[in-house]
Amino acid sequence: MTPTPTGYSALEKLTQRIHHLQHLSAIVGWDEAVMMPEGGSESRAGAMAELNVMIHEAYNGPEIPEILARAKDDTADESDPWRRANVREFERVWKTQTCLPADFVEKVTLACMRSEQAWRELRSKNDWKGFKPLFSEVLKLKREEAAIRAQVTGLSRYDSMLEIYDPGMRTESLQRTFADLESFLPEFIPAVVEQQRADRVERPRGPFPAERQRALGTELMKAVGFDFKHGRLDVSHHPFCGGVPRDVRITTRYREDDFTQGLMGVLHETGHAKYEQGLPQPWLAHPVGASRGMAFHESQSLFMEMQVARSREFLEFAAPAIRRHMAPSAGDSDPAYEAENLRRLFTRVNPSYIRVEADEVTYPCHVILRFNLERALIGGDLSLDDLPGEWDARMKSGLGLSTLGNDKDGCMQDVHWPAGLFGYFPSYTLGAIIAAQLMAALEKDHPSLRSEVAAGDFAGMNAWLRKAVWSQGSFFTTDELLRKATGAPLGTEPFKNHLRRRYLDG
Amino acid sequence: MTPTPTGYSALEKLTQRIHHLQHLSAIVGWDEAVMMPEGGSESRAGAMAELNVMIHEAYNGPEIPEILARAKDDTADESDPWRRANVREFERVWKTQTCLPADFVEKVTLACMRSEQAWRELRSKNDWKGFKPLFSEVLKLKREEAAIRAQVTGLSRYDSMLEIYDPGMRTESLQRTFADLESFLPEFIPAVVEQQRADRVERPRGPFPAERQRALGTELMKAVGFDFKHGRLDVSHHPFCGGVPRDVRITTRYREDDFTQGLMGVLHETGHAKYEQGLPQPWLAHPVGASRGMAFHESQSLFMEMQVARSREFLEFAAPAIRRHMAPSAGDSDPAYEAENLRRLFTRVNPSYIRVEADEVTYPCHVILRFNLERALIGGDLSLDDLPGEWDARMKSGLGLSTLGNDKDGCMQDVHWPAGLFGYFPSYTLGAIIAAQLMAALEKDHPSLRSEVAAGDFAGMNAWLRKAVWSQGSFFTTDELLRKATGAPLGTEPFKNHLRRRYLDG
Repeated sequence: MTPTPTGYSALEKLTQRIHHLQHLSAIVGWDEAVMMPEGGSESRAGAMAELNVMIHEAYNGPEIPEILARAKDDTADESDPWRRANVREFERVWKTQTCLPADFVEKVTLACMRSEQAWRELRSKNDWKGFKPLFSEVLKLKREEAAIRAQVTGLSRYDSMLEIYDPGMRTESLQRTFADLESFLPEFIPAVVEQQRADRVERPRGPFPAERQRALGTELMKAVGFDFKHGRLDVSHHPFCGGVPRDVRITTRYREDDFTQGLMGVLHETGHAKYEQGLPQPWLAHPVGASRGMAFHESQSLFMEMQVARSREFLEFAAPAIRRHMAPSAGDSDPAYEAENLRRLFTRVNPSYIRVEADEVTYPCHVILRFNLERALIGGDLSLDDLPGEWDARMKSGLGLSTLGNDKDGCMQDVHWPAGLFGYFPSYTLGAIIAAQLMAALEKDHPSLRSEVAAGDFAGMNAWLRKAVWSQGSFFTTDELLRKATGAPLGTEPFKNHLRRRYLDG
Repeated sequence: MTPTPTGYSALEKLTQRIHHLQHLSAIVGWDEAVMMPEGGSESRAGAMAELNVMIHEAYNGPEIPEILARAKDDTADESDPWRRANVREFERVWKTQTCLPADFVEKVTLACMRSEQAWRELRSKNDWKGFKPLFSEVLKLKREEAAIRAQVTGLSRYDSMLEIYDPGMRTESLQRTFADLESFLPEFIPAVVEQQRADRVERPRGPFPAERQRALGTELMKAVGFDFKHGRLDVSHHPFCGGVPRDVRITTRYREDDFTQGLMGVLHETGHAKYEQGLPQPWLAHPVGASRGMAFHESQSLFMEMQVARSREFLEFAAPAIRRHMAPSAGDSDPAYEAENLRRLFTRVNPSYIRVEADEVTYPCHVILRFNLERALIGGDLSLDDLPGEWDARMKSGLGLSTLGNDKDGCMQDVHWPAGLFGYFPSYTLGAIIAAQLMAALEKDHPSLRSEVAAGDFAGMNAWLRKAVWSQGSFFTTDELLRKATGAPLGTEPFKNHLRRRYLDG
């Protein structure tokens, strides 16, 4: 028998168990979304609940405070900064996981489950009145949660919710960043719409069998560097990137009348997947080996989708493959498959109600609206009675669209709030901004990047991202990581430059 | 907070956790065999090992003896026999799981893993000498294991190994049963071979695309009652039936030059699956809700494959579907797809070296040989030096085939011994015998069975099996269950009658 480990090695033993439990959770969760027959859900729910209890137990061992204190002592010198960062990350995650009383967590979980379940039906019925009481309960509990988290973290209530998804992200920085976009977009969007008015765009005509879309997606995934020895592509109702770093499972869904969404979805998830596949190998079982929060994760999917896949150069490279798989008999004659037409198709800007269908130019308006409203909701400055009206007013001023009486396409459109995920939305636009900032830095270091992309050579791009982002895990804070990678703090200029170049100068 | 449960409810809480852990193990194990990319194996091995540790911990809680004692008190009256049986089954499984010291289990597991891994390579090289030292270590430890189990159970060494797979099964009963077959088969086999000599059998000519074999398998699975709301069919290197009762995952593999093995494999696993799907719903999370051991499990797969799927009546029903999927363009003219030809094809008897490829007539010879040899190995009456020679001698006397110098098709052919699974082999032939006994009883209760099968109507058959076997879980012992279902103890007459009717009178 080996002696019971103490200090840093005890911490490692603990995080390894948690890591393994999370591995099981990731694979079984993927199975549930992708493979499980419908009749299996009840017994699966029981097994998953047990697994969550075990993860909860692992984080709540009474010996952890002492293990943590000793681990800090063990790593106090400067000799191994990764071990020290590992202790720091464990402590952060541990506090997030344990700061709420167990019976409160149970109450919140139940309320969110009920609300999310009801939302699925009530949204399709546009029934805000029916949904409000359930959502009100969620909001009440989430306000309580924010208050508890604020006390533990010493942050403001909303910041303590942001902290769950993006450690170090603060309202003040977001307000500054978003205010800048709010002064930029209201002129930029109409200018793009006006310029695109004259563009002739040919829509490829289907049907596009799922099998062929899958073959196209797989070919392009391989081309951009997805490692199929350590991952899979499958189908699920809601696309996601799951699994574990050594076995990343991405999913998509295929519409047989339109391949464009499915294809961009695959490339988006491929961006997430490459981040996971590129995380630092020796640290995968440890907190410091995890990805650096949701904004950076989203930056990797949007780098792949927005910076790369919708670019002129990528579509020059991909057009022949798209044509070969999507129109195998049409030959070279169909103008819909010309690179320039595909570029227009994949960069079309069109203000619309639904965030998940939005183009990259109008997308930030959707996120900023939610950021402002959810801050007010959590802060208690906005009541649910006023939410639909506020949503409508902001959609009108931001995108010129009214959602009055159309709550299913308004404040009921996203799953996040019904499921209690307050503080998540900003990550999407932060991701877009970081992606543009990374691309600007990468192009400066690597001036031949665009011609390499046009030639289907992604090695230089991947090597840069691996070194700058993927292999860093959670060693740095978000801010440090961004500064190290790009030489600058979070800033909107690269994003605005990207939009100008693509949509006005292009 | 709810008070800590005591007595029977504490036992239920414990078995529920174990049940959930086993659910995770089943799904993640299935994923590993069916879905996981090769690069995922190392990190998966870590997660699976952790899960095994947690299952081990769950069985080894220091409070269990007291919980068990109280649960026995709670269920001592006659009012709820299922609860009482549940306590009995828990105690049995618990003893099996905990009777070996933890460090011994670790040693055995490691030795078996090494031996099995080496076997995969050394078997293909026919290298018995290279394999012997590794196998010798496994055998040494398995002898020790049998000695410990014998002490705990009060059984003989080999019986205590049988007990793992088939509670209540004893060497004496097996010897009697097998002796009867050993006096029957040596005359029967040559008579069948002689009678079949004149049969003209047309082999369907491929290729048979996997997709079409899958469609055929799925159609026949549905017809015989596999519930796809609670299960799936997939592909793996070694076919198996996995998952959980509410979500049964069977697998097969397809050879494009021969659909017959894949098809019978699917129907075999479907038999296992229907047993799992038919287990008593309210007891699925409890030990008494599990299937009644390997012999009964094998009886259900062999009932489906041998009693039903290879019968004249089933093939009359299935021939049009087989023709439609396997020869869609050949039309009605290809004589290979006539029911009578398919019957001959699926009942061909041919003494051969390899157990897994054996027909149902020669199969028992393979099992009896292993039963006799493994008893001697565990008992210390046979040394590994003498094993190849003994194998050869018994193959010669049983099937007229020599394996001298051909150990890869002799004593090295199966994974069971290299993996340390001593005591498992008898279940296969017990299953065949029980299947025949069940069919004889079913036909007596339900005289129209064969005409229903020929018409593709399996409702009566399934209702009978559900009532007699599936829904009984582990409430009865194997012997009781068989007597209740068939009115008789284990006996070879129905099996011999079945063979006579199919192979000599048919």
